[in-house]
Amino acid sequence: MEHVADTFDLAEVSSAIRGCLPKDRASFELHEPWFNGNEKRYVDECIETGWVSSLGKFVDTLERKLEEFTGVQKAFALVNGTSALHMALKMTDVDFNDEVLVPDLTFVATANAVSYCGAIPHFVDSETRTLGMDAAKLEGWLAEISQMKNGACFNKKTGRRIQAMVPMHTFGHPVDMDALAIVGRKYNIALIEDAAQSLGSFYKGKHTGHGGRLAILSFNGNKICSTGGGGAILTNDASLGQLTKHIATTAKLPHPWAFEHDHIGYNYRMPNINAALGVAQLEQLPDFLKRKRALAMRYREAFSKVSGVRFFEEPDFAKSNYWLNVILLDEEAKEKRDDLLNFLVSQGIKARPAWKLMHKLAMYQDCPRMDVSVAENLEARLVNIPSSAFLGDES
Amino acid sequence: MEHVADTFDLAEVSSAIRGCLPKDRASFELHEPWFNGNEKRYVDECIETGWVSSLGKFVDTLERKLEEFTGVQKAFALVNGTSALHMALKMTDVDFNDEVLVPDLTFVATANAVSYCGAIPHFVDSETRTLGMDAAKLEGWLAEISQMKNGACFNKKTGRRIQAMVPMHTFGHPVDMDALAIVGRKYNIALIEDAAQSLGSFYKGKHTGHGGRLAILSFNGNKICSTGGGGAILTNDASLGQLTKHIATTAKLPHPWAFEHDHIGYNYRMPNINAALGVAQLEQLPDFLKRKRALAMRYREAFSKVSGVRFFEEPDFAKSNYWLNVILLDEEAKEKRDDLLNFLVSQGIKARPAWKLMHKLAMYQDCPRMDVSVAENLEARLVNIPSSAFLGDES
Repeated sequence: MEHVADTFDLAEVSSAIRGCLPKDRASFELHEPWFNGNEKRYVDECIETGWVSSLGKFVDTLERKLEEFTGVQKAFALVNGTSALHMALKMTDVDFNDEVLVPDLTFVATANAVSYCGAIPHFVDSETRTLGMDAAKLEGWLAEISQMKNGACFNKKTGRRIQAMVPMHTFGHPVDMDALAIVGRKYNIALIEDAAQSLGSFYKGKHTGHGGRLAILSFNGNKICSTGGGGAILTNDASLGQLTKHIATTAKLPHPWAFEHDHIGYNYRMPNINAALGVAQLEQLPDFLKRKRALAMRYREAFSKVSGVRFFEEPDFAKSNYWLNVILLDEEAKEKRDDLLNFLVSQGIKARPAWKLMHKLAMYQDCPRMDVSVAENLEARLVNIPSSAFLGDES
Repeated sequence: MEHVADTFDLAEVSSAIRGCLPKDRASFELHEPWFNGNEKRYVDECIETGWVSSLGKFVDTLERKLEEFTGVQKAFALVNGTSALHMALKMTDVDFNDEVLVPDLTFVATANAVSYCGAIPHFVDSETRTLGMDAAKLEGWLAEISQMKNGACFNKKTGRRIQAMVPMHTFGHPVDMDALAIVGRKYNIALIEDAAQSLGSFYKGKHTGHGGRLAILSFNGNKICSTGGGGAILTNDASLGQLTKHIATTAKLPHPWAFEHDHIGYNYRMPNINAALGVAQLEQLPDFLKRKRALAMRYREAFSKVSGVRFFEEPDFAKSNYWLNVILLDEEAKEKRDDLLNFLVSQGIKARPAWKLMHKLAMYQDCPRMDVSVAENLEARLVNIPSSAFLGDES
């Protein structure tokens, strides 16, 4: 392994990254929000008018702007992406003791939202091309372990119904939704699209979020557009969308004074003051996307000259937002991952590995899963590097 | 009943209310937020520094200020009161198929949070003195329907464990917590205090929120202090508080770059931009409380001269925030409630009845309950009238 030490040099990786970044800064976060537009103006307007809560024009405006930008019929702004996932699972009739297929390589919110329903996450391997769920491998796995009963898919090993799957667009790179949709139809498994990281990413020419019954977005502080905390549900099923909005708004029936609710509802609507931030951020999204792409292309160029590591590029069917830029260490260099992370952080370059795989977390270690060797390999080799929009050029 | 028409006059009630309100306004909401302090300054600071999400100094400041004001050891700011209730129930080990005692007369969030745990609300009657849970009647009911097994209380009729009770301080008026705590201890039922409406209300000289293992607050748009959407958990158990905070923050373990989580966590922390509003609002809380009390005393005086109706006053052991002022129609006048509501609304005076009782809502009609005749009587007679802080004098 002495060969590796020669060809994979921590300082070389660090200076490749540093060479792509502005010279006037000493340190770089992974993804910082950028409030360079109408944020203050809109937020001050909320305070002046007293409309800071969920009834207010910025919530409506944010939703119309999201529909326009994504092309999805209905968008609803919610308190965060995790709550949006919870709502989406509830709206897909995920019930206590069901199983839900989620990527083993994802942020923990995908699995947690399943747990909130009393359901059990069932972990799926990734494909190297997208970092997301591998549809072919999933189909082989379902053929092996499932059987259909009264039109529903059951896990023969656990006896539980497999009610939904939640593919996620990893670090903004679209997963192959069409291939997953075929599997979903074959096994009658509802498809929910976790687009928390992919606002501004396009799959086969369409914005992500069109592939399932419902999709979700996140506007957390580290996302491409931030509302402080926030998220959204997207759907092309207008009546399902209306019902989702109703249930996310405590399921209160309209009346001038009476308080009547017709479902177990949630208090999941985004406050107007957060939506005001979101409207200002969406106005800047096209610029953010250009800048993030410019930064990604610079990284790609820089890493083409560094040995032992490659820059991860968008799948050929996609145009990614490059939310968090990814480099993958070569097989031979992967044992150096932690050294690289520590070295980069010591150089003022914030870097992080992939999330610890879901099946390795204490609370999920006994959940069902297929062979997840690709996810394990990606986890060992993957490093995220600074990706804030303001680090890239406008051009 | 012609007698009633003579003694209960809609116009008389309307002009009693109108006489207590500022003359320079045509219409009055039930409770409007009032942003008259440092709200803009603090929110603008968040935007300028980029600290809008859950890490940020205003979240910390809000929590320290809440601890100072309530005297409770630990306060944690969350996205809203409903989420705070959900967290509190989870932290009290409320599990799938448990029962949780909640008031029949409450906002639906109390019961919904129980449902989120897969548990079943079990409805408790009110006492007229507080509008809240009747401890004596509850004890009689538990003596009849429950039995202890291995130290836990079980409902003999349903076979389910009764794991917690969630009394609520109705419209800001403290329920008799000490009496409920005795029942809780006797039956080993955990006590969670729903103080969503009672920020600024004191029970036997202490701020509400000291009576159970955990208490929750709300800063919704209609509350005495608003953060857009927001809530908090309060507890005097410091280690339970630390664990609650950890689990509300996705249960992520601290590390410079690794993503590891050791529990099923929630994304329930309040964003910094909402906390900035909250800090400014808390600075004004003492003034808001004075003004709301002044308005309440004016209503009390005015209604002492109106027949067929009385102004609801704080219980003798309490100092209430008079969040939403309450009038109660006399027995003989209660059939006029809806006429009164419609008349007041037509006069620009927003008014509302109590919430529809929980056991009458479609999704909760089959849940267990005791005799709830007092709650039913209160529901028939209760009307809320305009209560915004700025309607009262500063003195």
